[in-house]
Amino acid sequence: MLTYVLDASLQQPLYEQLSEAVKSDILAGHLKSGDKLPSKISLADHLGVSKITVENAYAQLLAEGYIYSRERSGYYVEDIQVAGFSASLDANPAFSGASAGVFIPEIPSEASEENRSASSAAAELFPFSVWSRLMRGVILDSGPDILAPGPGQGLRQLREAIAKDLFKRRGMSVDPGQIFIGAGSEYFYNMLVQFFGRTRKYALENPGHRKIGFVYEANDAEIVPLKLDQGGVIPGELEKSGAEIAHITPFNHFPTGAVMPIGRRQQIMSWLVAGENRYIIEDDYDSEFRFSGRPIPSMQSMDTSGRIIYINTFSRTIAPAIRISYMILPAGLVEPWRTKMGFYNCTVPSFEQLTLTKFIEGGYFERHINRLKKHYSGLLESLKSVVLRPEFAEYCKIINAGSGLNFILEFKDIPADSNLRSLLNLYLPQASLIEDYCIAPDARYDNCAVVDYTGLSPEKFGEGLALLVTTIYAK
Amino acid sequence: MLTYVLDASLQQPLYEQLSEAVKSDILAGHLKSGDKLPSKISLADHLGVSKITVENAYAQLLAEGYIYSRERSGYYVEDIQVAGFSASLDANPAFSGASAGVFIPEIPSEASEENRSASSAAAELFPFSVWSRLMRGVILDSGPDILAPGPGQGLRQLREAIAKDLFKRRGMSVDPGQIFIGAGSEYFYNMLVQFFGRTRKYALENPGHRKIGFVYEANDAEIVPLKLDQGGVIPGELEKSGAEIAHITPFNHFPTGAVMPIGRRQQIMSWLVAGENRYIIEDDYDSEFRFSGRPIPSMQSMDTSGRIIYINTFSRTIAPAIRISYMILPAGLVEPWRTKMGFYNCTVPSFEQLTLTKFIEGGYFERHINRLKKHYSGLLESLKSVVLRPEFAEYCKIINAGSGLNFILEFKDIPADSNLRSLLNLYLPQASLIEDYCIAPDARYDNCAVVDYTGLSPEKFGEGLALLVTTIYAK
Repeated sequence: MLTYVLDASLQQPLYEQLSEAVKSDILAGHLKSGDKLPSKISLADHLGVSKITVENAYAQLLAEGYIYSRERSGYYVEDIQVAGFSASLDANPAFSGASAGVFIPEIPSEASEENRSASSAAAELFPFSVWSRLMRGVILDSGPDILAPGPGQGLRQLREAIAKDLFKRRGMSVDPGQIFIGAGSEYFYNMLVQFFGRTRKYALENPGHRKIGFVYEANDAEIVPLKLDQGGVIPGELEKSGAEIAHITPFNHFPTGAVMPIGRRQQIMSWLVAGENRYIIEDDYDSEFRFSGRPIPSMQSMDTSGRIIYINTFSRTIAPAIRISYMILPAGLVEPWRTKMGFYNCTVPSFEQLTLTKFIEGGYFERHINRLKKHYSGLLESLKSVVLRPEFAEYCKIINAGSGLNFILEFKDIPADSNLRSLLNLYLPQASLIEDYCIAPDARYDNCAVVDYTGLSPEKFGEGLALLVTTIYAK
Repeated sequence: MLTYVLDASLQQPLYEQLSEAVKSDILAGHLKSGDKLPSKISLADHLGVSKITVENAYAQLLAEGYIYSRERSGYYVEDIQVAGFSASLDANPAFSGASAGVFIPEIPSEASEENRSASSAAAELFPFSVWSRLMRGVILDSGPDILAPGPGQGLRQLREAIAKDLFKRRGMSVDPGQIFIGAGSEYFYNMLVQFFGRTRKYALENPGHRKIGFVYEANDAEIVPLKLDQGGVIPGELEKSGAEIAHITPFNHFPTGAVMPIGRRQQIMSWLVAGENRYIIEDDYDSEFRFSGRPIPSMQSMDTSGRIIYINTFSRTIAPAIRISYMILPAGLVEPWRTKMGFYNCTVPSFEQLTLTKFIEGGYFERHINRLKKHYSGLLESLKSVVLRPEFAEYCKIINAGSGLNFILEFKDIPADSNLRSLLNLYLPQASLIEDYCIAPDARYDNCAVVDYTGLSPEKFGEGLALLVTTIYAK
C-alpha cells in the first residue's frame, strides 16, 4: 500500500502533504494510469491519519484531474500522458457537475446588473476603514511622489507585492520584471493584439467570455471559436483551428467552475510547443473563488516553453471600480514587449497602485479573499438547498463545481410555448439565458440559465423560483 | 472711428468686451480685410478707456489671428475668408516667434525625463492637503459606492463638472452626455482607431506628437504626414493627403506655442465639410498653458458640422500619475459610439473620478491651473532673459509664442563638426534634438533644440548654456 511520511509539525496541512506525495508518484510514473488507490479508510489506518485527511487529499487530486472515481468501486489514477485522455474523461464523475454538457463562459462586464450586485456584496465585506487608512498613509508618506509619473510597466513595489502574493497563494514563482500593470483585462487584450499582430489567428473558447471576442473583433483580428467538452478546450479542435494563439480559461470555466484536468493541460502544452509561433493567453479570471481544497496551479506555473501569457484582475477580488489588472509575460517576451509597446504609459494611477501595494503587503488582500470565499461558498450552499426543496427538485437543478460566482440553473424539459427569457427577467433578474454568452447558439443550452448569485438572497431566490416553476409547469 | 459701449460694471474685463466687439465686427464683415485699426492711443481716448485695455484687446485679436500688425504702421484686419490667407500670414509678425520656420510637436511621454521634472515642478504647486482632504471626503461620503462599477462612459458627476469647467474657462458648451472619461489620451487614440476603423487614412502633423503616430501604427492604421507652416496644418496639404481623418493640435503647437489663426481654422473647416466621411480629432493638449490674454477658443466650439472629436488630459494640469483624459464626441456620434464601443468598461477608478469631481467643483482645479500658469510664465521669462545676456545673445535665441511648457533654443550656424546631441545630453539634459520629434527629418531643424523648461532653473540653464556655447563656438 502507498506509504508516505506525513509530518503534522509542518505548516503544510497533512492532506496537502498527502495529495502532493501521490501527485508526484503519478507524475513520476510510480503510479500508473488505471491503478486503483487504496480506500480512504484503509489508507487512513495505514498512514495513521484521519479519514478526513485522506478524503481531502483525494478530493484535491480529483479536482486537479490526477485521479478519477467510479461509483461503488473507488479511486483510480487518471491517464494523463496519452491522447486517449478524453475517453477516460467521459467516464469521469469528477466532472459530473458538468455532465449535462453545459459550459457557458460569461461576459465579465463590470457594468452588468449581475456585477452591480456582486460589487455591492463585495462592498459589504470590503474593509473600508483599512483601505481609507492606507490611502491616507500613501498620501502622507509619498507626498509629491504620487504625482510623479511611474514606469509604463507599473510601480515596482506593486509588482513585487503581486509576485510575493502569487507565490504564497498560487505557488507561482514570477519575477516582478515580468509583471505589467494595466487598467482592466480588456486593456491587456487590446495590447496583446497590438503586440502579436492582427494577422494571426486567435482561438477563443466557444462558448467563451464574449467580451474577449468583442475586443479581438474591434481590433480586426481573426478569431476562431473552439469547441469544448467537460475538460475544457479539446486539444484536437485547437490543432484543427489553425490558430497560433489560444486565449483560454483553464481554471474555473464559467459557469460550471470546471477545471481543466492536468492531463488535458499537458495535451494543450504539447499543442503549444508543436508550433514555433504558438502562444497561450491564460485568463485566470475568478481563480481566487475556489471553495474547497487549495488553489489549482496555473498553467503559467507549469510552463517550460516560455509561451504562456498570464492575465488576472483585481476587479472581482477587490472591486470592479478598482480597474487594476496585471499581465505576466514569459521572461523571453519582456524585452520584445518593451521595445514594441514601451511607449505606452501605465493606465493605472500611481496612487491606486501604492494603496493596493500596502493592501497586499499588509495581508489585507488575502484576508479579504478568504472573507469573500467564505461568504460566497456559504451563500452558494444555501441557494443549492433551496433548489433541493421538494417543490423545486423535480423541475430544476443547480450545476456548479464549487468555484466561481455563478451557477447554472437547469430546468427539466421546458414546455415549448414558454418564453424563458422574459420569465427570467420578470422573476429572477440575476439569471440570464446561456445563448447570450455563446458565440454560436447551441441547443444543449436551451433549458439552462446562468445565475450570478453574488447578490442573491436565499429568500429572494426561493420566491423567484416558486413563481418561475409555477408559471412554466403549472399549466 | 470704432465706437463700442464698454461697461466697466460687467464681470467681463473691458479688454475682453472690446476684443469681442471688434471680433464680431470682423466676422460680420463690418470690418474688412486690410482695414486699418485706429492706433491704441486714439482708440483709448475715443472709448474713454486706458491704453492698456486697448493693448490687451489688440494682443488677443492678434493671437487669435483676427488682425495683424505692420512694423511702424499699425494694426490691420486679417483676411480670414479667402484661401489666399496664408499669403498675408507670411507677413504676419503675430507668428514671428515661429518665423524661424521651426515647428516640432513633442512626445507627451509621462515617462520621459522632461516630464519627471515637469511633474516635480507641478507637484510643489499641487495642493496636497486639499486633494487628500477631498479623497477622505469621497471615502466617507460614498462608502461602498466607490466600489460599485461606474458607467463605461465615466461618472456623470465628473462629466458634468468637466462640462461646467469647459464652459467657464473655454466658453465651450458641451453636454455631459458627449463626454467620455478614459485613462490617458493614448487610450482614446486606440479607441478612436477601433471606432473609425483602420482602413481609413489618418493625417498627422509632421513634425507631430510622435506618440500619436506610434499608437496609429501599433493599430496598423495608415497614417499620412502633413506639412506645416507658421499657421499650422496647410489646408492644401490636407486636401492632397487624401486622408479622411485629421488628428491635429490647432492650439499651442509644440514647441513654438503657435496658434492656428482663425482664418486657417476656417479653411480646415471647409476641408472638413467638403467630404462626407471627414473628421477632425482636435488634440487640445496643454491648451491651459497660455500665458497671456484669454484662452483661444477650441475648434470644437466653432464646429457646426458635428465632425470634430475633442481630446484633452488632466495629466499635465494635475499630474502625469493621475491618468485621466476625456474625449468629447459630437452629439451625433454618441449613439454610434455606444453601440460599437459600449462594451468597454471605464478605465479610470471611480474613486479618482469622484476626487477629481470635487477638485473641479470646489474651484481648486481652476486655481491650480492659474498657479501653474503664473509659475511657468514667470520661469519662461527669466529663462528668456538668460539667453538675452551678451555672452549668449549672439549665439542662440529662444523661440516661444508665450504658451506651452517648452521652447525652442535655436543656435546660429553650428560648426559641422560639433555633435549637438551629445553636447545637449552633457550640458542641458532638459533639451533634446528636434529630429527626435520628426516623422521625417528636416534640415530646417538642424540648429534647434527643444527644451522642456518645467524643471529648469535660470541658474542651471545659465551654467549649461555657458558650457554649450563655449564648446560649440570657442574653437
